[in-house]
This record gives sequence, structure tokens and C-alpha cells, in this order.
Amino acid sequence: MINIRQALLVGGVHGNELNGIFLVKKFEQSRFRHLIQRSHVKTSTMLANPGAIAICQRYVDLDLNRCFRAPDLSDSSLQGHEHTCAKAIAQTLKHRSPDFLMDLHTTTANMGLTLLLGSHHPFNLALAAYLCEGNEWIKVLQVTSTQADGRLRSLCPLGLTLEAGPIAQGTFDAHLFFKTEQTIFKILDYINAWNQGKPLTTPNTLTIYDHIETLDFPRSATGDIDAMVHPQLHGNDYHELHPGDPLFMGFDGKVTRYEGPNTVYPVFIQESAYLEKGIALYLTTRRHVSIPDISSL
Amino acid sequence: MINIRQALLVGGVHGNELNGIFLVKKFEQSRFRHLIQRSHVKTSTMLANPGAIAICQRYVDLDLNRCFRAPDLSDSSLQGHEHTCAKAIAQTLKHRSPDFLMDLHTTTANMGLTLLLGSHHPFNLALAAYLCEGNEWIKVLQVTSTQADGRLRSLCPLGLTLEAGPIAQGTFDAHLFFKTEQTIFKILDYINAWNQGKPLTTPNTLTIYDHIETLDFPRSATGDIDAMVHPQLHGNDYHELHPGDPLFMGFDGKVTRYEGPNTVYPVFIQESAYLEKGIALYLTTRRHVSIPDISSL
Repeated sequence: MINIRQALLVGGVHGNELNGIFLVKKFEQSRFRHLIQRSHVKTSTMLANPGAIAICQRYVDLDLNRCFRAPDLSDSSLQGHEHTCAKAIAQTLKHRSPDFLMDLHTTTANMGLTLLLGSHHPFNLALAAYLCEGNEWIKVLQVTSTQADGRLRSLCPLGLTLEAGPIAQGTFDAHLFFKTEQTIFKILDYINAWNQGKPLTTPNTLTIYDHIETLDFPRSATGDIDAMVHPQLHGNDYHELHPGDPLFMGFDGKVTRYEGPNTVYPVFIQESAYLEKGIALYLTTRRHVSIPDISSL
Repeated sequence: MINIRQALLVGGVHGNELNGIFLVKKFEQSRFRHLIQRSHVKTSTMLANPGAIAICQRYVDLDLNRCFRAPDLSDSSLQGHEHTCAKAIAQTLKHRSPDFLMDLHTTTANMGLTLLLGSHHPFNLALAAYLCEGNEWIKVLQVTSTQADGRLRSLCPLGLTLEAGPIAQGTFDAHLFFKTEQTIFKILDYINAWNQGKPLTTPNTLTIYDHIETLDFPRSATGDIDAMVHPQLHGNDYHELHPGDPLFMGFDGKVTRYEGPNTVYPVFIQESAYLEKGIALYLTTRRHVSIPDISSL
């Protein structure tokens, strides 16, 4: 039976995502430390990128959450701030050997609380189903393995990334702060009950949104952005987008429509940090999966 | 009679405020240039901080919109990116000698379209009254002269800063893009009619919000931020805040209330760029001013 004795809660992989940073800072205070301890699971905390946190920027040199690929971690020629940071974190993880990892992020997109699972391990799926039940504002997003590559969560198969939004970089959202905190508590309670051989009742299905396509902004011949996300799409993460629905609006008001054959569900609509990556939004499809029996794990 | 022959439209004083940058880029294209020309007023454009725009950051070294103080502009020891930039802009303004300046900004606060007037020149007041009439989402904010010091708009007494929000840094808002554009067109139409001796009908009163206090986040003994903007206040720019109403919520849920004696109107609630300046929000009071007769100007 799997036994999750050590959990690790990480904030500040991106230095301007304040909600997660200040949740970790809260739990690092002695008067709040007990909140993330359970009888059968110990939780430690980590602020991943103190250099970026100090300047309230996503990163110093480059995106830390793309630096955890195995070849990069062992490449001594990679010496920038975030590569050095990633190697130190990987060492710490080897030392602490957490069984479960929670990585706290925020997004400027209207994605409520989105779970990105570290793997499709049956325990992760069961936990996600437990968290989603009765909580319409919690969603599970599955990106491709190439996209997940290099992420911190790839270092620990049990666990997840929690994205909370919409929150502008460098700002707080108190409402989402406490919702994220409650979700962390529920995760720890779930693990704790499991460890005691008394697993909490878990729904037998889960809805997952699978990334199928990445859309850039429309561009001019010279590569300049030529259109914005359409006002009707703005903030409509996880809502149905039908063939023919508006996607973009040009600076001249011209509308670009979605021309795919099927209904899709856009997410990360206008995530600010994705602008430099040439990403305006993701398209996903929705599926319902059965939760495997985890009693024999 | 004052005669406004040359208008200047500026975007990109802050490199991550995309709506204004792309409005200027639009009007710099030959197919759109005519949109900002009028029979009796010529409009030129400027992208103020190309270095910051290229990296989609507010600034390279420091906030450009604090670099326009007269002593700084003539201080040859100030050589950083933005100081150099400010001096070049001041030279350009001397050369082009615009009679009217519009400076386009965005804010993460929910401030609709906010006008910050370059001065309380009667023409500015009359124009603002004209723009506000029937448009509840346009407000006029007056900051203290110390706060206005160093701003680009201080270089041209006729004109204004347009703040549009809420827009996360590094993102577009198509709805506010076209509202801002329409407002620019109305400004130019107003000036054009004035120049022809046929001033447009202007209301005789205007509502102004006057800055009275700047509030930082509550802090711990060690200077760390100790609370967030309260969920009830979040996004409530320009709404009444009464004595006893919640202002902040601690990371432990503890509420800090407004203890001032009178009703006030908070603005710039959680402007992301103000975090580093130790500003959580501004408090303002509201007053109604009479518009002076401008027919003899």
C-alpha cells in the first residue's frame, strides 16, 4: 500500500504570483504551522525562487518552471539564476524525498481553481475526483507530456499544481487565497485518512479537460500581434466554444471565428506570462474518466 | 483665444500596458492614421519607452513616469535607461510643441476609464465635463501636485492621462480598447469644434475625486505584508467606503476596518505596479465643481 508520509508545499516558483507565496509564508510562521500538519502526514514548505520573489517578477533570467528536465538538471554548463535554483531544488527534493508535492500558482485567466496532476496515478485521480465533487469552480486540466516536461511537478509523480485565477501578477485575491487554503487542507485530510486505512468516500468519475491545441494571437506579416481576445471569449475559460464562435477581435474590429469542427473548451485565456511564449489561449476537450479502484494500491 | 493645433497621443510610458501601446501602433499604420486627424487639429503619436515595450515590462531601470521633474531633466548625472528616455521625450516635446497631450495607461484596478487632468485649466475641466456626461464609467481623479510631479502630463498643461482598467499587465482588453479609442475621438472632435469657434455643448458641472490619503498594506513588525485587500473592497473602486467598512483581511482572516470619520471613495485598489511603492490603494473624496465659462479663453 502506498504511504504518503512527507508532503511538500511549494510557492513562489514564479515570483509575482503572490497568493501562493503568502500562503507558504503563512504556514512558515510558528503560529500557523500546525494548520498543515496531520497525525499521519508531515508537510514541509518551500519558497522556490527567492530571487524572483524579491523583485516581484516571474523570474530573474528565465522561467524556472521549464528548468526541471533531467538533462538540464545534470548539465553543468547551465548556470543562470533559474537553472541554479532548479538544481538546488532538485537536490533538496532528493534529500527530503517528499511523497506528495503541491505547487501553488496563480493565473490572470479566469480559471477558478485548476488542478494539473503530476501524473495520472490512480491516487491522484481519486484525490482530484474527491476535490471536484460539489465544487464547480475546481477543474482538472491535462496538458501533453511535452508541455509538462520541465515543470517542478514532474519531479514527484504524486501531487499536483494548483492554479488560481483570475489574479493579476503582483496582486492578491483574498477570496481565492482562502479557497486555495481550504483545498490544501482537504488534500491533507484525504491523504491522512488514506494513511490510516480509512479512505474518504470518493466519486467514481472525474471530468478532465485535455489540451488539444495552443493558439497564438493573429499576427501581421511582420509578426506583430494583430488582434485581441474577443470580448465574448474574455474570461470564459472552461466555457463551450462552438464552431463559428468569435475568438479574436482585430484592432480594426474585424472578428476571427473558431473554425474547428467540434465544440472545445478554451483555458488560459490571456495568461499574461504566456504572451512572450506566443500563446493567447489553449483549447481543450472534455472527457469523463472512471476512477480506478485504489483500495489495493 | 486658445488654439489647439497640435495634439500628441502617447502610449507605452509603461511597457506592459498593452491597450495604449497597441492603440498608438494602430494609429501609426497608414490605413488608420486618418482616424486621429481632424480638419483643425493635427495629431502625432509617440511610443514613449520602446526598451520597456520590447521586454513587456513596466520599465527597464525605474518608472519613466516619475522622471519628468524639471531638475531631473537637466541633471546630466542621471543616465539610466528611463532618465535618458525622459530627456529625449522632453526634447521631442520642445521640438513638436504639442498644445494638447493624451497619455494612455492601463491599471489592474477596476477604474473604468479614469481621467487625470494635466492641470485644472478651464479647457481641461470643460472637456472632462463633456466626456463624463452620460458616461458613468468615466471618472475624473485629482491627485496632489506632489504626486503629479514627474509625470509626463506635467510637461503640457492642456491634456490628460487616460487610465483604463481592470487590465492585467501584459494582457489586452478589447472592450476597453474600443472605449478608449472612442474617448480619444471625442476629445479630438471637441478640440476641433472649439478651434472652429463652434464649441460643443458642455455641462456646467463636473464630479472630481480628490486624493486625500494613500494606504499601504498592513505590515508585520518586520515589514512584511500582513493582510490583503478585503474581498468586499476588491474591485470596488469609486464606490462609497463608510467608517467601519472592511478594508483589509489578514492571512488569518482578521478584518481591518476603515476608521476615518467620513465616507470616502477608494481608487487604484490593488494597482499591481504600486506594490513596490508601498501603496495598496488611494482614498479620495468627491466634489462637484462648476465649469467656468470658457467662451472668452
